[in-house]
Amino acid sequence: MNKNLVVAICGATGAVGQEMLQVLEQRNFPYSKVIPLASSRSVGKKVTCKGEELSVVELTENSFEGVDLALFSAGGETSKKYAPIAAKSGCVVVDNSAAWRMDDECPLVVPEVNPEDLDWHKGIIANPNCSTIQLMVALKPIHDEARIKRVVVSTYQAVSGSGQKAIEELENQVRRLLSGQPVVADVYPHQIAFNCLPHIDVFMDNGYTKEEMKMVHETVKIMGDPTIKVTATCVRVPVFYGHSEAVNIETEEKLSADDVRSLLAKSPGIIIEDYPEKNAYPMPVNAAGDDATYVGRIREDETIENGINMWVVSDNIRKGAALNTVQIAETLIERDLVRVP
Amino acid sequence: MNKNLVVAICGATGAVGQEMLQVLEQRNFPYSKVIPLASSRSVGKKVTCKGEELSVVELTENSFEGVDLALFSAGGETSKKYAPIAAKSGCVVVDNSAAWRMDDECPLVVPEVNPEDLDWHKGIIANPNCSTIQLMVALKPIHDEARIKRVVVSTYQAVSGSGQKAIEELENQVRRLLSGQPVVADVYPHQIAFNCLPHIDVFMDNGYTKEEMKMVHETVKIMGDPTIKVTATCVRVPVFYGHSEAVNIETEEKLSADDVRSLLAKSPGIIIEDYPEKNAYPMPVNAAGDDATYVGRIREDETIENGINMWVVSDNIRKGAALNTVQIAETLIERDLVRVP
Repeated sequence: MNKNLVVAICGATGAVGQEMLQVLEQRNFPYSKVIPLASSRSVGKKVTCKGEELSVVELTENSFEGVDLALFSAGGETSKKYAPIAAKSGCVVVDNSAAWRMDDECPLVVPEVNPEDLDWHKGIIANPNCSTIQLMVALKPIHDEARIKRVVVSTYQAVSGSGQKAIEELENQVRRLLSGQPVVADVYPHQIAFNCLPHIDVFMDNGYTKEEMKMVHETVKIMGDPTIKVTATCVRVPVFYGHSEAVNIETEEKLSADDVRSLLAKSPGIIIEDYPEKNAYPMPVNAAGDDATYVGRIREDETIENGINMWVVSDNIRKGAALNTVQIAETLIERDLVRVP
Repeated sequence: MNKNLVVAICGATGAVGQEMLQVLEQRNFPYSKVIPLASSRSVGKKVTCKGEELSVVELTENSFEGVDLALFSAGGETSKKYAPIAAKSGCVVVDNSAAWRMDDECPLVVPEVNPEDLDWHKGIIANPNCSTIQLMVALKPIHDEARIKRVVVSTYQAVSGSGQKAIEELENQVRRLLSGQPVVADVYPHQIAFNCLPHIDVFMDNGYTKEEMKMVHETVKIMGDPTIKVTATCVRVPVFYGHSEAVNIETEEKLSADDVRSLLAKSPGIIIEDYPEKNAYPMPVNAAGDDATYVGRIREDETIENGINMWVVSDNIRKGAALNTVQIAETLIERDLVRVP
């Protein structure tokens, strides 16, 4: 079954689309054909998967005929327009934009955390926001063991989360500053080189950014528990790849730092890197290009009865986007769900 | 009174020592003579203050005869050895190292917060750690108004906090990476360029770093209130100047975000920069070279009854070190305390 899947990649020329093709290849994803889709600007460009050179095809309303599975990473507007068209033509969509995440008809899935939510999909499945995914991987085992009441998280997010142009902007700004030239800021409202911007996505009326509120709302949906409270400060830092998070957790039951270490060490998708005596702790430059969510700096927070601090790092383009999307597709195959009900 | 003070700067050639000389000049500090002291390696080097070129003199046990006030920033070992010698010879010491901060005989002072602690000095006054100072400036008005119960803080600290060599290391690593060369890490245990290191100062047995525990213990001493609980994660980021802090506060009494904004706006040493609609919030590149502690991103934390999130940025070399030291000296003059009791 499912051995001859036809897979479309929407947004195949973007940072995440490119990474999706790599992940399909690296994991030997069982497809018979991959169709790279993009806007008319990119038509004719070449991409590669499993050693095969593929020509990018224009994304249109007819792109999904005969396609079993479409992985979208082409921005919210494209997803809003084309995901329902794809689903209507019988193609299961896994969407990496924010367009469908909070839609009650769409499961929001981290395969290590809530694979069972795929069972009720109606054709469109949403991939959570990058900063939420790695947090969920690290929090789920703790929530299952000791029930999480409250999380205070501060993020240190890489520029690759804003796409290829932001990667170039950081590099260009650094080059200009080191040669004494004024910087040009285009993707971000301010200089990002050698700076920190406490501003990711747009500001909401409550003073939080949309990125911060995504962590609040997506956590509840993915965990399936409206009682988990999250408050977040999301900050862009001059790092190319890899989001880091300082996470403070209050649980119902007491867990020691050792309890958390043992618990997470045996949990899926996590690598513990917590050897202060060897100066070993998670860092974005090490996590970049890797699949795991790295957890370290695990220590008890003595300011509350049941508190834990930890430091969580993962590649925002892989686990935070492309890898999680492909893992959702793999789980759909495993559970025989690559069909629109 | 005090118009003809002889002032010694110990560690006059370091990053903070240089900044102290600048701050003395910029604030027209009332000295009759400045003596730049340093180790024998730096003897004969020239420094400048108020347009006058000064030759660096070797720091010895006899350096403090006839000196009224000594500002130390030459590392903990030097302070441990020479501060008592200076105090014994009648010179009041303001020390920027960690050597005397938790000593019961030494006041630990942020002039905006606890100037009255200077009254009981016995010759040595300690300047708090950089990341603590800006936090204290921002928290004191809130504590006075609504009593702070608990603070969760995550820091984004600039490399200048590790001295001149760390500034050069970040620059060199960035240059090498952009020209495709492997990096050399010398000051830090890992690459700092385009990376985040959750590791500042040494690790303690409880899993926290010394930097994190400084924030816990110094806060209690400066606020003079053992009930304030602080938990911290301290992170080095690839920024040259300016520490940033994501601060989550739980208070006894309810304060709205507007209450906090009005309160801090009228408090000493603080500039509110909190206009999301104009993309205006504190950032290290803007705070660098400036005296104020900038506060923004003020918003209510709905996960607890009385919660506030905010973002605090200040120049770690100025308010975090040189400026605070000179402000202590100014306050000593104002309160007629430039004498060893």
